[in-house]
Amino acid sequence: MTEPRPGSRPTLEAVAEHAGVSRATASRVVNGGDGVRAHLVDRVRTAIRELGYVPNHAARTLVTRRTGAVAVIIAEPEIRIFSDPFFSRQVRGIAKELTAHDTQLVLLLVEDRGDYDRIERYLAGGHVDGALAFSLHTDDPLPAITRRIGMPTVYGGRPGWTTGTGEHGGEGVVYVDADNRGGAREAVRYLLAQGRRRIAHIAGPLDQTSAADRLSGYRDALAATGPELFAEGDFTPAGGARAMTELLHRDAGIDAVFAGNDLMATGALRVLREAGRTVPGDVALVGFDDAEPVAESADPPLTTVRQDIEGMGRLMARLLMHRLNGGPDGRIAPDPVITATALVRRASA
Amino acid sequence: MTEPRPGSRPTLEAVAEHAGVSRATASRVVNGGDGVRAHLVDRVRTAIRELGYVPNHAARTLVTRRTGAVAVIIAEPEIRIFSDPFFSRQVRGIAKELTAHDTQLVLLLVEDRGDYDRIERYLAGGHVDGALAFSLHTDDPLPAITRRIGMPTVYGGRPGWTTGTGEHGGEGVVYVDADNRGGAREAVRYLLAQGRRRIAHIAGPLDQTSAADRLSGYRDALAATGPELFAEGDFTPAGGARAMTELLHRDAGIDAVFAGNDLMATGALRVLREAGRTVPGDVALVGFDDAEPVAESADPPLTTVRQDIEGMGRLMARLLMHRLNGGPDGRIAPDPVITATALVRRASA
Repeated sequence: MTEPRPGSRPTLEAVAEHAGVSRATASRVVNGGDGVRAHLVDRVRTAIRELGYVPNHAARTLVTRRTGAVAVIIAEPEIRIFSDPFFSRQVRGIAKELTAHDTQLVLLLVEDRGDYDRIERYLAGGHVDGALAFSLHTDDPLPAITRRIGMPTVYGGRPGWTTGTGEHGGEGVVYVDADNRGGAREAVRYLLAQGRRRIAHIAGPLDQTSAADRLSGYRDALAATGPELFAEGDFTPAGGARAMTELLHRDAGIDAVFAGNDLMATGALRVLREAGRTVPGDVALVGFDDAEPVAESADPPLTTVRQDIEGMGRLMARLLMHRLNGGPDGRIAPDPVITATALVRRASA
Repeated sequence: MTEPRPGSRPTLEAVAEHAGVSRATASRVVNGGDGVRAHLVDRVRTAIRELGYVPNHAARTLVTRRTGAVAVIIAEPEIRIFSDPFFSRQVRGIAKELTAHDTQLVLLLVEDRGDYDRIERYLAGGHVDGALAFSLHTDDPLPAITRRIGMPTVYGGRPGWTTGTGEHGGEGVVYVDADNRGGAREAVRYLLAQGRRRIAHIAGPLDQTSAADRLSGYRDALAATGPELFAEGDFTPAGGARAMTELLHRDAGIDAVFAGNDLMATGALRVLREAGRTVPGDVALVGFDDAEPVAESADPPLTTVRQDIEGMGRLMARLLMHRLNGGPDGRIAPDPVITATALVRRASA
């Protein structure tokens, strides 16, 4: 082990020597620590602290040809992004992880399809090292763009844009998702176990896999007991209200509703109240998400399927950094990650 | 005038000739139209349409050394940005204007001061042509950063970071703000005209000029009638509730409250109700902002000082594009712009 020499700026080599590791290992820790065993990370970090090592980012950028920035692309109009706490939670998780890697988060908003030409120019212009994209719709042009320009990208939500062409197969496309189908199945089974028999579903926009998968879970649970009844919403309170109105019109005897997200459940609550139905007395109601403050502050508070939204954001960012750093043995791209959901019981069901 | 030649791609020169204007004027229209008289803009756009001219962005970027992107920096934690509709409104206005200039909006979040090193590296890295910054606090490091790296920047809100050093004088610093002081004065005078006599103020964080200026307006209006009574909040509902609790403790006879924004007013509403006070019967309440849906959906709906938040966003972006394009005669930077406010009367006062 070397002692710090006063007056000279410590090098990465000095850090490696001080920690008793290779230069490559020390470098990996400085660049985020991916693929380095925990006790070695600790030793390198101790050495960094003891020697007062300061990484030279400009030099690092030159050597690695990296910008130190990652684009986050949310394929929804800005009005949705700012009104649904799902998005802020996901961004929060991403921001925490990128900050831990000293990487700048660059948020790109997509108001409509016309914006993609500009976004492609920006991504192709070498201003970011990689991209995180979420809330994509089935025919979203983004995957083709990122493939064309060779931009490492991790997706939030199961990709739904390739059907049968094998393009996303096992390789290349990395994504993080919640167990939407399993969570939905659990919610509807819970309603069945409470003796509810006419259970309707308010689906999200069915060109998003999260909405389609939750509808599949609803169908799984009802398979044995009988007829499905669902209307498509758009993940907003207004869309939930419209769908609820339609469902009551089609079947006035509904005794339970599983809504594809909490915001649509709040819209449904309003319509049920206006129609003179009590919740949970006449109609039990279950949502999906549990992103504060929607489900908890509803009246009555919503039973809902919780997904770890912030955790999924962190995971997306971690997988991208892993990919950018080449992984411990130079391999790229682990498998997709599906995170568990959990039913949270409150007053509405 | 030339006719389009079939099979060849029309040049900017051809557009200029077709429109009967100089190449420089045609170029200016293609790049956003700043400083070109309306009838010339129309003629050039007609020529573009008739010839089927497509600007070559890559070439343009090379020639102008521009990235075609602008950073939007909001100096607030992400949790505030996503929960206060003020920010989404401002971003919406900026996005609309930048889209009209075919310029990519790049949103940078500032969670804490430690993030500024990374933001400086990103801004200095040549990834954006200019910056729009808002919600700055008095000692914010951003103005020094943008000066140091020579980044053209337009601010939202009157800069409060130079006191007496003359640094922001008349030159260089361009900003857009609402008439915070005038709007606050009008709100408090309205309460006085209704016979209210013990009017308290819930101020925003006083290290922001918007909060300080609204406090000044409150003081202006009360100067003749008597003692001021205010507590500092933080522009959130929780901060408004805390301040309201403190104010009631200091003076149980308060008959009116002017809150520095609508979110704090909703927090105050809750505390007033819990203290058994009716609004507006016992206590009249006025807010500030009128960004949907807060004031309108409060119970009772809030009388408030409306500011044109989206319009201010558009204006910030327009001033920056003007600056980047050098203006009609090469001049840079017009004067600060102060936009008018208007009292919107609803049930709360």
